[in-house]
Amino acid sequence: MVVRDTSSIVQLVDAQIDRVVTRPGTPPALIDSIRYAALGPGKRVRPLLSWHACVAAGGRGPESVPVGAAVEMVHAFSLVHDDLPALDNDDLRRGRPTLHRRSGEAMAILAGDALLTLAFSSLADLSLPASRVMRILNELTAATTGMIAGQVYDSLGGLPSELTDEERVVLIHRNKTGALIRASAVMGALSGPEDSPETLDAIVRYSEAIGLMFQIVDDLLDVTQPSEAVGKRTGKDAELGKLTYPGVLGVDGSRARVDELLSRAEEAIFPLGPRSAGLLDMARTLARRDH
Amino acid sequence: MVVRDTSSIVQLVDAQIDRVVTRPGTPPALIDSIRYAALGPGKRVRPLLSWHACVAAGGRGPESVPVGAAVEMVHAFSLVHDDLPALDNDDLRRGRPTLHRRSGEAMAILAGDALLTLAFSSLADLSLPASRVMRILNELTAATTGMIAGQVYDSLGGLPSELTDEERVVLIHRNKTGALIRASAVMGALSGPEDSPETLDAIVRYSEAIGLMFQIVDDLLDVTQPSEAVGKRTGKDAELGKLTYPGVLGVDGSRARVDELLSRAEEAIFPLGPRSAGLLDMARTLARRDH
Repeated sequence: MVVRDTSSIVQLVDAQIDRVVTRPGTPPALIDSIRYAALGPGKRVRPLLSWHACVAAGGRGPESVPVGAAVEMVHAFSLVHDDLPALDNDDLRRGRPTLHRRSGEAMAILAGDALLTLAFSSLADLSLPASRVMRILNELTAATTGMIAGQVYDSLGGLPSELTDEERVVLIHRNKTGALIRASAVMGALSGPEDSPETLDAIVRYSEAIGLMFQIVDDLLDVTQPSEAVGKRTGKDAELGKLTYPGVLGVDGSRARVDELLSRAEEAIFPLGPRSAGLLDMARTLARRDH
Repeated sequence: MVVRDTSSIVQLVDAQIDRVVTRPGTPPALIDSIRYAALGPGKRVRPLLSWHACVAAGGRGPESVPVGAAVEMVHAFSLVHDDLPALDNDDLRRGRPTLHRRSGEAMAILAGDALLTLAFSSLADLSLPASRVMRILNELTAATTGMIAGQVYDSLGGLPSELTDEERVVLIHRNKTGALIRASAVMGALSGPEDSPETLDAIVRYSEAIGLMFQIVDDLLDVTQPSEAVGKRTGKDAELGKLTYPGVLGVDGSRARVDELLSRAEEAIFPLGPRSAGLLDMARTLARRDH
């Protein structure tokens, strides 16, 4: 097991993204917009999860870089399109103008499309048997379709009317954020050597817990922090009448739910022993983050 | 070699698209929009090319259906996004309202994103060795990135200034239309049994010739046919000052170029013998189409 610090993992992932998006024949203005969206400031939570899940499943880490770059590009694509005027109409993202404010709406639509396409192109760098590649392809397409479904429910409605408010907010969050967090970890585990179904199952349970936890923390930051601290417009969920955790459970109830999900994530990976140290550390950091 | 008529091939491809897009948990309004865009009237040129290229390379045909469905979904995605108000702002497509006119701009953006994602999900149905899957994945991502690059040049400019008008129109068309036509044939050939590099090379040369030919015929229809016959707004290229073949070479010069490209396509596949009959027939039909 090779231990690497976060910044050297991020460097490897960013280098892969840079390599994949810089195709000969691509208009320089398109590459520039793609790089702005995918290689700007950001926590790179998803590729870090892929790396640590790969190590937890017995891998070394670097073999997860093609999937880590892919999930980060899918994440960047979804931010660019969700920020568009026809959807969330946001002006600020990671402390900078959103891509459509910077480069125009046409370019933002096309750069988002290119990011989504190039995410799949990163998978072509995997050296794995076909059955593994197909499982990874299925994870990524299921998560991306889930994110899009979550955005449809969130922006356009259409949720089954018999659901309670908490069931609705869980369903939206599971799709919008949880699906890709889960896929980041699962794809990372699948990019390593063949491991036991028990290991994969532990990583699935861990990732489902922290996926929901991550979004509850996001909702809490939206109500408790000023925009400057978070780098995007806050307070907008309440303004738009969107369903959120603090809206359904209150701030204290939401904090209690974060603690409960953190425990659940810790318990899930406990049987994996020391090689899951990276995942454990990430779960704790994500529970306590303030931006 | 099993000979099938066009309509039974289209039925198999449409059934695959229908299966791939109907995922449990997907909002019904999203599935409805995806089906409107991908399963409406249309010639299904690209999956038919995949099928006939598969047969020309020694396959039976049905094994090309996952890639045929994928290229048709990528094609449908590109039409939905290109029609958006921020891009070509079109109201009519295949004789019906464009998706954003029917279901709103937010839904059109998200349904396009879902179609692009689900195209890759169709590839997960291939039963091929990993090296073949990776080649197919690379063909599809290269063609899709090429289409997006072509749309950037066409809508936002940025072509190198030293190019002649004919070089510019060839570059735009090769990206916007040619890249996916080429990929449709190449992916079809790759979905069959391992064949000689000479066969694949013949199919590449065929597909590059008919890709350009297809777009010249499109440009000619835009200047010579009324909207009702073509099912989309015609005459708009001249109106928007876009570079077209008839604009650069004149109507007669463009027709001569069509004949020349048809001959080049026929010659390319001549060495493949009777199993390339489907490709030969397609090339001739596409050269003579009037809508």
